[in-house]
Formats: sequence, C-alpha cells, structure tokens
Amino acid sequence: MTKKLTIALDAMGGDNAPGEICEGALRACEQFEDLEMILTGDKEKIKPCLERASSDTARRIRVMHTAEVVLMNEQPVTAIRKKRDSSMRTAMEMVRSGEAQGCLSAGNTGAIVAGGVLVVGRMPTIDRPALGVPLPTINRWTFLLDVGASVRSKPVNLYQYAQMGSVYSKKILGVAEPEIALLSNGTEEIKGDEVVMEAREMLLKSSLNFKGYVEGDDVPWGRADVVVCDGFMGNVILKFGEGLMQGARSIVEEEMGHRFMPKVGMLFMISMVKTLWARFNYEKYGGTPLLGVEGTVVKAHGRSKAPAILGALSAARNFILKDGVENIRQELETA
Amino acid sequence: MTKKLTIALDAMGGDNAPGEICEGALRACEQFEDLEMILTGDKEKIKPCLERASSDTARRIRVMHTAEVVLMNEQPVTAIRKKRDSSMRTAMEMVRSGEAQGCLSAGNTGAIVAGGVLVVGRMPTIDRPALGVPLPTINRWTFLLDVGASVRSKPVNLYQYAQMGSVYSKKILGVAEPEIALLSNGTEEIKGDEVVMEAREMLLKSSLNFKGYVEGDDVPWGRADVVVCDGFMGNVILKFGEGLMQGARSIVEEEMGHRFMPKVGMLFMISMVKTLWARFNYEKYGGTPLLGVEGTVVKAHGRSKAPAILGALSAARNFILKDGVENIRQELETA
Repeated sequence: MTKKLTIALDAMGGDNAPGEICEGALRACEQFEDLEMILTGDKEKIKPCLERASSDTARRIRVMHTAEVVLMNEQPVTAIRKKRDSSMRTAMEMVRSGEAQGCLSAGNTGAIVAGGVLVVGRMPTIDRPALGVPLPTINRWTFLLDVGASVRSKPVNLYQYAQMGSVYSKKILGVAEPEIALLSNGTEEIKGDEVVMEAREMLLKSSLNFKGYVEGDDVPWGRADVVVCDGFMGNVILKFGEGLMQGARSIVEEEMGHRFMPKVGMLFMISMVKTLWARFNYEKYGGTPLLGVEGTVVKAHGRSKAPAILGALSAARNFILKDGVENIRQELETA
Repeated sequence: MTKKLTIALDAMGGDNAPGEICEGALRACEQFEDLEMILTGDKEKIKPCLERASSDTARRIRVMHTAEVVLMNEQPVTAIRKKRDSSMRTAMEMVRSGEAQGCLSAGNTGAIVAGGVLVVGRMPTIDRPALGVPLPTINRWTFLLDVGASVRSKPVNLYQYAQMGSVYSKKILGVAEPEIALLSNGTEEIKGDEVVMEAREMLLKSSLNFKGYVEGDDVPWGRADVVVCDGFMGNVILKFGEGLMQGARSIVEEEMGHRFMPKVGMLFMISMVKTLWARFNYEKYGGTPLLGVEGTVVKAHGRSKAPAILGALSAARNFILKDGVENIRQELETA
C-alpha cells in the first residue's frame, strides 16, 4: 500500500474561497491516490462544495470546522495571534502537531508568513524565511526568491535565500548544479546597492555555484536556476510580469474581436495565445513555498481557481515527498 | 521661416555606433525641417555614414571631431572627468555653452548622468536628477522614473521625482491633471519600506495629484500617469519587461517555424505580433530624458538602431520645443 500523506488546506483563503479551493482539493485527491486532506473553515459553506466527491475521495477529505477567517487586508501578525480559531491558523497548527505534513493557503500573504514563523516555527539557522516561486522562462525553470515574505533584506538574508533556493532547485526541481545569481541593476561588479554588493561578497566565498549578478531581462530569458532578491523587488517584478502578460493577452483578444479573420486564422491565433500563455502565465506558477520554517507551508495566489489550487497542492505534495524541510535544515547546518 | 533648433548627438555612443546613430540623425533631419545637428565623434568613421545625405540635410549636419570615446563599462564619473575630448562630453559641452539646445547619447548610462550633473549642471533645487521613460500601457502612456540615474533614493528624492514627472506628463505628454503614484509592494497604507512610506507622507501633503501606492501589475495596466520608484527598481523592471516581451516574441516566432500553418494564418499571426510588439516594445520607448539638469539631456537605449535614435531625437526636440527644462525649474521653485 502507498504511504499516505496529509495536507491541511485553508478552505476560506483567497478571492475564490471556498468553492474553487474545495474543487481544487477534490481534483488533487482524484489525481493523487496517496493524498489525504483536512479542509479548515466554515463547514456549512464547505460541505456543499464537496458534494460531487466520489466515495473514495470523500473518505480522504476531512472537514475541520473553524469559526474565524483571516481577511486579505488584515494586519498579519495581529490576525494570526488573535484569530486562534481561524481557518488559516488551524491549518498551520495541524502541521505543528504533526497531524498534517504540510499546509496550503491562498489567503493573506503576510499572515501566512507570520503563521509560518509563529505557529509552525522558524528554523533556528534562518534569520528570515522567504517565499520562492518557480518561474517559467525561455530556457528553464528559474526559482525566484524572496517574492514577499519580507520587505527589505540584509546581506545575510539574501545569502540565506541563496542557500535555500539552491536546495529547492536541486532537491525539488532536480537541477544537478543549480546556478545561483543575485538580481541587480547591471551585471558588472560595480553595480548593485550596498546590500546586494555585500551579499555578493558573501556568496563569492560560499560553496554555492554562484554566478554573480543578473539583470532584469536575464530573468525571463532564464539565465540562472535561482535568482535572489529582496521581497519588495520580488513582489513588484512578479506582479509586473503577471500584469504584462495579462495585458498582452487582453490586447490580442481585443484585436481578434475587431479584425476580420477567417476561421482558420482564428484557430491558429487561439492556439498560439494558449502556447504563450501556458509558458509565461506568471499567475499559474501553482505554489509558493515558504522556506526556512519547520514544516511544509505553501502559499497559493490569492486569485487562484481550482487548477491553480491543484497545482499548489501538487507542489506541496512534492515538497513533502522530497523532504524539502529536512534538506534545507541539513544544508543550513552543514554550510 | 521656422526657428531652428540644434541637437548635439554623441555619434560614438551605443552598441551600433556610429552607423545606426548617423542614420538616425539623417532620418531626423529629413523628418524635422527645423532641426540642425552637431555629430560628435571620430570624423573618419562618421563621414562615410553620412554619404547618402541630400544637400539640404548635409547643410544641417555638422561633424565635430573628438578623439576619445567613453566605453560602456567605464567608471562613469572618472570617464567624464578624464576624457575631456570624448564624443559624449563634447556633446554635453555644446549644451552648456548654448551652441546646442540639447544633446543625445546612446552610450554609458552612468556617464550620461555624471555628465548631466558635472558638465551641463544640476538644478540647485534638485538633489538628484532622474531618468524617466514614457511607457506604453493598456490605458495610457505612463511616465516611469527613476529608471537608473541613481541606485537607491531617499524620500526627498522620490518626492522630487514625482514633481519632475508631473511636469513632464503635463507639459510634454499633454496630460491635464497627471495622476502620480508610488510603486510599492501593495496598495494598502501599511505596505512599502521606510523610504517609500516617508515619501508617501510627503506626497500626501503636496499639491500634486497623488493617488498613493500602485503595485507591479498596475504599471502595464496603466493605472497612473506617473509612477515613481528608485533607480534600482526602475532599472530592473524596465529590463524585465523588455526581456519578457522579447522572450514572448521569440516563442511565437519559433512556434510559427514549427507549425504547419496556411499562409493566411501566418499573415494574421505576423500582423498580430506586430501589433503587440508595437504596443509593448519596451526597448523602443525612444528616449529617456535626464530630468533635473540645466539643459536637455536625453539618453537612448544602448542597443538603439536608427528608428530608436530617430524616436529619441524626436523626444529631445519635443522637450526643447516645450521648454521642458524651464518648466521643471519653475515647478520646483514655486512648489
């Protein structure tokens, strides 16, 4: 028999909760036979969303009722501290107690980070955890971090992000010798601000496969396996990329509406837009692991629908199966 | 008779100098009858590039021989200080002496900024000049600054960028009441780092039409007329946008090569790619004015070919005709 694994899912987090979140959970259980899930949230609202479950799936999904919800714009630390009966905090407590091997939420990003630190626990070797995203690029998958666990970073934080990113790339994404780079305003040595420059010095002395600086256009071209930046920068460029691709898509769709185009032209156009969208849809990266905490905590995009939740659950499962937390701990202890 | 205006052009700056630079100058003279130009650089290399000029155009282009060139990766301040006979510095000296009303270079960005401050002169009311770019977005042109005159900024610098951006948007781009925004990691009040938060407080008290924070995806959607950030951030997102659009284009072209596609489908595809490219080609923004110095100094992209040089010359001409420098001086003095 396959070994089972359990993921706690915050069914109330995100713009499309609980409907799309529950549907994502159903699809994940259908896809992964080893998966068991605990859905935290308002049971009256969750139950109807699970009605279509087969008996096998239903057997593997448990609903844990919670009375509170962390709102999207709430002050993160306060929300996690005070809303002890919230769906998000309860999912995290499942990880701390060992009832679940990991948890997922599409809710308030700051609160997920705060919960990761306060409820699941920060690794003693890590000053600050980081949110990382595997991004599709022209050449390869590039793991970008931090995309918003912190705002600004010290050199030591960037250094630790590089260490964690290297482990993620190697162990989870399967890259043999991940190339690590620091995001800067130019590739030359004289570029960077003081923080980036000092992090560069630290990384040059480390055992990591450090390639120096990359620039903004090196990210979509995939010129490194791991790109390290502070959370302010990571947040802005990730959202900028999302907006740019959505914008491009809306222009193409509008043009397709305006122009006379024979059906065959239209068909090719649609397939091309789909190809491009599949390659560069920065919104569908599927799951953003919080690295540097004592358990598997994954964030999904706030706008996630069922396919993105399925993707994020798949990422969380993968992280658990490949011992992500243990691998990061070992790397940080031996470095 | 039309009033003449003179622009000094660094014919040796950029990856495609002097050929594409000179060709851009010829096209600008052909397009604008009021334009006279001084091309600075190695006359032996420049002359052959101007051979195709009509007699009218030739009459309006003067070559000023210089023996030195500021290289792309040279330390900017040292290069400007020491290479007194460089094409870049000489073009700037034409502006200081009044022989030219403005200058343009596609060379070393840092050196253009250093030359703007040291040769043309910084406005006494401005702590640091800024490079701004009018970006095409879904809704409107958005003027983004700083895109790399400085690395990091203090709150007062961001505040002054907002003032200068507002003037540029109003006087040069013709926006009646430009909406000004600060780029941040979220739209809520609690977002931002300390610098951005303090700049926000200053801007809320100003007479500018300040709308608060915008996020990364608000830039391509065009949710403000002027978006203010520090030069590190501006540099990274501008290049990231360039790379993403180039990457998207290369995927489409590759797909078009692979797929069987009837000619009619191909034609529609090509026209669509062109539409998209024309809308979002971040490389062709045509000219990046250096704001906060005592003369018209415009930077063109280092990879500029003739059409981009033409665009940048057109931007410089426009800035001169609309009294850009004087308008910024007045705004800063009366604010």
